[in-house]
Amino acid sequence: MKKQQFVVIGLGRFGSSIALELMALNYEVLGIDRNEEIVSDMSDLLTYAVVADASDEEVLKSLGVRNFDCGIVAIGEDIQTSILATILLKDLGVSTVIAKAISVLHGRALEKLGVDRVVYPERDMGIRVAHQLVTPNLLDYIELSEDYSIVEMKVPMCLDGKTLTEINTRSRFGCSIVALHRTAGIIIAPTGMDQVRMGDIMVLIGSNANIEQFENEVMHDN
Amino acid sequence: MKKQQFVVIGLGRFGSSIALELMALNYEVLGIDRNEEIVSDMSDLLTYAVVADASDEEVLKSLGVRNFDCGIVAIGEDIQTSILATILLKDLGVSTVIAKAISVLHGRALEKLGVDRVVYPERDMGIRVAHQLVTPNLLDYIELSEDYSIVEMKVPMCLDGKTLTEINTRSRFGCSIVALHRTAGIIIAPTGMDQVRMGDIMVLIGSNANIEQFENEVMHDN
Amino acid sequence: MKKQQFVVIGLGRFGSSIALELMALNYEVLGIDRNEEIVSDMSDLLTYAVVADASDEEVLKSLGVRNFDCGIVAIGEDIQTSILATILLKDLGVSTVIAKAISVLHGRALEKLGVDRVVYPERDMGIRVAHQLVTPNLLDYIELSEDYSIVEMKVPMCLDGKTLTEINTRSRFGCSIVALHRTAGIIIAPTGMDQVRMGDIMVLIGSNANIEQFENEVMHDN
Amino acid sequence: MKKQQFVVIGLGRFGSSIALELMALNYEVLGIDRNEEIVSDMSDLLTYAVVADASDEEVLKSLGVRNFDCGIVAIGEDIQTSILATILLKDLGVSTVIAKAISVLHGRALEKLGVDRVVYPERDMGIRVAHQLVTPNLLDYIELSEDYSIVEMKVPMCLDGKTLTEINTRSRFGCSIVALHRTAGIIIAPTGMDQVRMGDIMVLIGSNANIEQFENEVMHDN
Amino acid sequence: MKKQQFVVIGLGRFGSSIALELMALNYEVLGIDRNEEIVSDMSDLLTYAVVADASDEEVLKSLGVRNFDCGIVAIGEDIQTSILATILLKDLGVSTVIAKAISVLHGRALEKLGVDRVVYPERDMGIRVAHQLVTPNLLDYIELSEDYSIVEMKVPMCLDGKTLTEINTRSRFGCSIVALHRTAGIIIAPTGMDQVRMGDIMVLIGSNANIEQFENEVMHDN
Amino acid sequence: MKKQQFVVIGLGRFGSSIALELMALNYEVLGIDRNEEIVSDMSDLLTYAVVADASDEEVLKSLGVRNFDCGIVAIGEDIQTSILATILLKDLGVSTVIAKAISVLHGRALEKLGVDRVVYPERDMGIRVAHQLVTPNLLDYIELSEDYSIVEMKVPMCLDGKTLTEINTRSRFGCSIVALHRTAGIIIAPTGMDQVRMGDIMVLIGSNANIEQFENEVMHDN
Amino acid sequence: MKKQQFVVIGLGRFGSSIALELMALNYEVLGIDRNEEIVSDMSDLLTYAVVADASDEEVLKSLGVRNFDCGIVAIGEDIQTSILATILLKDLGVSTVIAKAISVLHGRALEKLGVDRVVYPERDMGIRVAHQLVTPNLLDYIELSEDYSIVEMKVPMCLDGKTLTEINTRSRFGCSIVALHRTAGIIIAPTGMDQVRMGDIMVLIGSNANIEQFENEVMHDN
Amino acid sequence: MKKQQFVVIGLGRFGSSIALELMALNYEVLGIDRNEEIVSDMSDLLTYAVVADASDEEVLKSLGVRNFDCGIVAIGEDIQTSILATILLKDLGVSTVIAKAISVLHGRALEKLGVDRVVYPERDMGIRVAHQLVTPNLLDYIELSEDYSIVEMKVPMCLDGKTLTEINTRSRFGCSIVALHRTAGIIIAPTGMDQVRMGDIMVLIGSNANIEQFENEVMHDN
Repeated sequence: MKKQQFVVIGLGRFGSSIALELMALNYEVLGIDRNEEIVSDMSDLLTYAVVADASDEEVLKSLGVRNFDCGIVAIGEDIQTSILATILLKDLGVSTVIAKAISVLHGRALEKLGVDRVVYPERDMGIRVAHQLVTPNLLDYIELSEDYSIVEMKVPMCLDGKTLTEINTRSRFGCSIVALHRTAGIIIAPTGMDQVRMGDIMVLIGSNANIEQFENEVMHDN
Repeated sequence: MKKQQFVVIGLGRFGSSIALELMALNYEVLGIDRNEEIVSDMSDLLTYAVVADASDEEVLKSLGVRNFDCGIVAIGEDIQTSILATILLKDLGVSTVIAKAISVLHGRALEKLGVDRVVYPERDMGIRVAHQLVTPNLLDYIELSEDYSIVEMKVPMCLDGKTLTEINTRSRFGCSIVALHRTAGIIIAPTGMDQVRMGDIMVLIGSNANIEQFENEVMHDN
Repeated sequence: MKKQQFVVIGLGRFGSSIALELMALNYEVLGIDRNEEIVSDMSDLLTYAVVADASDEEVLKSLGVRNFDCGIVAIGEDIQTSILATILLKDLGVSTVIAKAISVLHGRALEKLGVDRVVYPERDMGIRVAHQLVTPNLLDYIELSEDYSIVEMKVPMCLDGKTLTEINTRSRFGCSIVALHRTAGIIIAPTGMDQVRMGDIMVLIGSNANIEQFENEVMHDN
Repeated sequence: MKKQQFVVIGLGRFGSSIALELMALNYEVLGIDRNEEIVSDMSDLLTYAVVADASDEEVLKSLGVRNFDCGIVAIGEDIQTSILATILLKDLGVSTVIAKAISVLHGRALEKLGVDRVVYPERDMGIRVAHQLVTPNLLDYIELSEDYSIVEMKVPMCLDGKTLTEINTRSRFGCSIVALHRTAGIIIAPTGMDQVRMGDIMVLIGSNANIEQFENEVMHDN
Repeated sequence: MKKQQFVVIGLGRFGSSIALELMALNYEVLGIDRNEEIVSDMSDLLTYAVVADASDEEVLKSLGVRNFDCGIVAIGEDIQTSILATILLKDLGVSTVIAKAISVLHGRALEKLGVDRVVYPERDMGIRVAHQLVTPNLLDYIELSEDYSIVEMKVPMCLDGKTLTEINTRSRFGCSIVALHRTAGIIIAPTGMDQVRMGDIMVLIGSNANIEQFENEVMHDN
Repeated sequence: MKKQQFVVIGLGRFGSSIALELMALNYEVLGIDRNEEIVSDMSDLLTYAVVADASDEEVLKSLGVRNFDCGIVAIGEDIQTSILATILLKDLGVSTVIAKAISVLHGRALEKLGVDRVVYPERDMGIRVAHQLVTPNLLDYIELSEDYSIVEMKVPMCLDGKTLTEINTRSRFGCSIVALHRTAGIIIAPTGMDQVRMGDIMVLIGSNANIEQFENEVMHDN
Repeated sequence: MKKQQFVVIGLGRFGSSIALELMALNYEVLGIDRNEEIVSDMSDLLTYAVVADASDEEVLKSLGVRNFDCGIVAIGEDIQTSILATILLKDLGVSTVIAKAISVLHGRALEKLGVDRVVYPERDMGIRVAHQLVTPNLLDYIELSEDYSIVEMKVPMCLDGKTLTEINTRSRFGCSIVALHRTAGIIIAPTGMDQVRMGDIMVLIGSNANIEQFENEVMHDN
Repeated sequence: MKKQQFVVIGLGRFGSSIALELMALNYEVLGIDRNEEIVSDMSDLLTYAVVADASDEEVLKSLGVRNFDCGIVAIGEDIQTSILATILLKDLGVSTVIAKAISVLHGRALEKLGVDRVVYPERDMGIRVAHQLVTPNLLDYIELSEDYSIVEMKVPMCLDGKTLTEINTRSRFGCSIVALHRTAGIIIAPTGMDQVRMGDIMVLIGSNANIEQFENEVMHDN
């Protein structure tokens, strides 16, 4: 299977982060930005980086954008160019187009134009940060549904040395510890005999209500 | 235990997202922004919202910022105000201060000034998006370590109706399915007899290499 | 049948011309513009005129825009607001939406968003003016098809006093004079006995080629 | 007869539309604009296109503007340059000068300076669009006088299959159908036996009042 | 005879100087300027001073400009407003309109619009100053024709105590001393016996060539 | 005697007018302006014209400004540069420096810095224009003192054919006609027998009060 | 003796520092600045603080500036206002006027206008800082002449416990220690028996060459 | 001992003054500024002068900034760059970093980042000037402590010819004259027999209260 090729339009903080991570994952990336200085800074880091106006159809054609599998419209503040570039990518036949939106209405416009996925980076990251702020031991989490999550939490001192049987999350709180991560390595599906150490990372799955109860009753050091 | 109170400085996309999510989680939030229109839009949505220059010590004092447990400096582009507001929050005794950085150097300055956590929303979200782009079925993931992850993936048509025993991720790819999520509900620690349906969501844990191999060999519909 | 009601967004030269003509035709018109001065100038001339940002959904709702039959997005240079206002009108259920475009790509975006008719005022008027420039006696015309037109022409001195039989457009040039317009009134379907006078206006129907031949061979005064 | 040559000053949307249509009609066009990018975009499409300040007499002389038959001053927003360029064209002896006006007062100034025709593209197109909006089947029209018009209308379903005798516009509404346009071709001066089909286009001539009555009583599908 | 009334449009350095001098000469002056601060400074010094846009016909009408005998368009740099205000004054029936021009082309436009006199203050004053610079004793002068002038000159030391007979301008240089101005008063048509004193002012009439010769041969102190 | 050389700083309307008139009077002129376009336009018209910042001492030295006899600081709106250039000219030893002032305070500063003559072109020309406006036959005038003037006036129809004895300005109004200027030539010191013709120009000397009385009683055509 | 009163024009960093220090020294200070915010911040700290344009003579008069003994023109970047305000202060009779200059030419203009002292704060402070940088123990100094200075230096560790006789600056380096400053107090004219301690401050007087030699040979810790 | 090398960031009035004084003191100085014109003016006056953005780590590295002993961050108004450049200098290992602050909060930020000395040039110079203003004979001074100073004062006429014994500062006012500076040279530790002359400069040491008393009672000429 031929490797996907990506065109990233807009090389600001969000676009350049995607582009660089895709490079790190060994994909080919064409970066496009209107700003010469930005392009010059990125030119050694991407497969190609060009200064261009992404709302100019001729320009996108001449760059061969039609041959790319996936386009990311990561334009920051300029809704107009974001929309026009999106139309051009779709019309040129780029099969997957994802685009950053800076407002709900902008997102709605992108969806109507057929964008495959609309991303709101600051909004989504704000939500993640808010959750971590109110749950100090929370490192990361996945929302499985509105009610269920997987959470990654640091083991606090008060649990140091306890076995999973002692903590007994399943019967007391209805949530399971599906992995333990410690310096020595990952224990997937740990048994009741496994002890946790302060600083270990537990991966829990359960309903949000149950996880919150567990967090409130057990996880605090005092 | 008294509930934490938060002061969010800068109510742009990132700051307002944190502030609104904290409100949704039932915390008290004081929002501060220099822009009258933004504050007016947020005033019904936050506990308090005020128009103020966050680099003016007298202003922060008069707002009682010293009584807040946690301050979030979510100022967008203005590094100067970001730094000065950070100093003021720390000097006023706010115990936890997290701040958004827009460049590595900005982040370094914030760290030297004693910020508890520096966040790079666009960069971090860019990295997440890049991973999802190169793994089309990937919905979300947690990096447990450099090598291990938990991933949430949509079941493709090619696996429709198979039992976990048939898929056999553990012995073939060394990674475990720790949960199945379908319309009917969540199955935590599913057994080998459980069937997956196209559109179900599997939660897998394993090394990145193993997950990637599984994704490449099994998850594609053709 | 209840009379149509119109909302015109953008009261620049094009929008205000539509709005005023609709008023002259006895329809109700709500005019919206961001510019206070423009709205103040129009407020006595339209049913209602309000200062508002047409890309703000709450504002459009509060103005009852959903109750209008037809929306005209006549925004001049601001493609972004043009697009966002268009989405809002469609989403609010305005049954007919027509919009001005300032470039082909802008027009394409509007069409993808479901606009019923895209208008290019300067381009279309430029084309009309060009035709009149190269045919000095041409006053106005309708393109019936790519090949056929109805044209309105001033009678030049060289035809003064001739009867239609003498001019004999039908057999010599294959085009018919369907009306004669003179100070005394309109003669619809004039007969061969009718004389034309310099300054009368003839309405001709025919193929473009035939009309052009007639114009070149007969209509010049020397 | 030598072909006319045109100089178009101002290559914005209106000016470029005139210039391109004149080219399409096989005339020679010199385009002048102050904006380098615009001139560069037009340079392959016009006979000549130059970057120049049209209020600089020396420049216009050196471009040989005195040899042109017709000058079009299509300057957008800059009334001052519009007026000064108009004076220069007239003084250099260009026999026909038409100019775009953006306000009534601007138009009055142009007329006092001897412009042969003042055009208000947005205003005039706005009026046309307003008429079409209130008469949904109206495609295009010519105002013969204040009271009489020729109109081009789509045949609605309710008239499908009727003969002109049955419709009987002349005796019932006092207006004549002077042509029928259908896919198969144009029928000029159709007879009473001719049937109309939904989607055909009728060309009607009559007084505005009569046409409106016909439109209201006959043309609606329900 | 009813006293003339003046309206001065534009109260910059030139306009305010005219307006103030007219006030000093006991005429009524209405001053109009767009700039609030300027109008406020002038409001005690003129009969009326109003903040208004002089290119707005309604405004000029409501100020009763049609009742003024003479209008001075003294607008500095804004050619557009200068031209539009001029048209309005003429159309409103102001019988005499004079206007400041800042370039030859501007002046030509004003003349075509029927301005009674076009003034170029800086250009004309520059010419006067140049003449005074090259003739150090020259105080002021009137050009009677291309060849003849009246000049006002300071008596240099070298002529101190001489009688007019001794100086003998008429026979030696062909020009007459028509007046002598000294502290004690004016001597009109002085006789040959009158002595001049250093610092007296002589008024000479003659051809430019003769005056220059006199200046070169007699008027220098060494 | 060596001819004077002039340096003119600031080539706007006032400065360029002085410079060009000095050139016309056959003097050498160095023109200096900060604006490249202006200098390029003047370069063929002056002895030298250079683009330079006149407040940069090194620049003025390198241009040899110290060798000029007279400097004219004709800078328009920039009081700062006007003052600094003036200081530099004086310090470099230019013997005569005259400078344009745009306000009384500016003029006072220039005088304190030793400027030989301060000129207010717009103000002075405004005063001249005001006098001409209120005295329609007045062409030009010299103020000899606060009370006495020489005036140049057109002969109105009502005086046509009269002899100077009949007009009798001296005994009736106390002012003398010192010259008559007609197409045929100048008559200096005309006699009582000389007739005036409508359109001739009379040069009168007298007190302002007397001249005004004469103007009011005699000079009007009705 | 009546206490001096000060007017400070320009309340930027330099002007406000002077004004506040004068207040601290118990003098009355009127502060003037064009910027409302600055004046509002200073209004509680100065005797009076007003928002005013210091180049407006009427304003300065109405503030009674003529009654002040000393005026400080501390205007930052605006040379024009600095010069005009200076003229006004002098003309109003303020006996002492000092002014900040931002360039040598600005300073020259101020001197010509009769300013009593021209201050270059950044330049002078830059010179002080440069001296302290190259002499690490140097705290402060007075230049008595080009060759002689008084310097204030920290005693380094290497001199800790030594008596002045042991250090013997006078005979070894030709410079005298005129005072010793330590936590316990100041010793003026210390004797040879006095010991210095690390951290004490010595005040030395001598020629620059001698002081530098002493600094180089004795004052370094290694 | 190798000579110190200095890098000065920001070559405005303060930075260039430091840099030039360091050059005059025979040190090597690298000057950095973002402004091309400034760098070009300084390039002949400093060891090196480069146009660079001092908040760009790569740039500072490539300039070898790590090899400099001392960095001076003399950036005027741009707090952000001041802070980022400071961090970079510290991180690159420059052992001494001093920085200019324009506000107390800016200064606090610099201190937290480890700056060795924060300088407030305008504030400090303002304080010095204030002291000199209220003590007219004061030329310069050093504050030894809050209470003690060394002051340099001009001898007024009233003391002319007196011996130090007669003046008797020590017993009457408790302060000592430690030096006398006159045209003939410096007298360090003058004796009671030494006479002072008007215009000599006395260096006094004492408590501020005593010096002030001496100034008030003795130093005034009337």
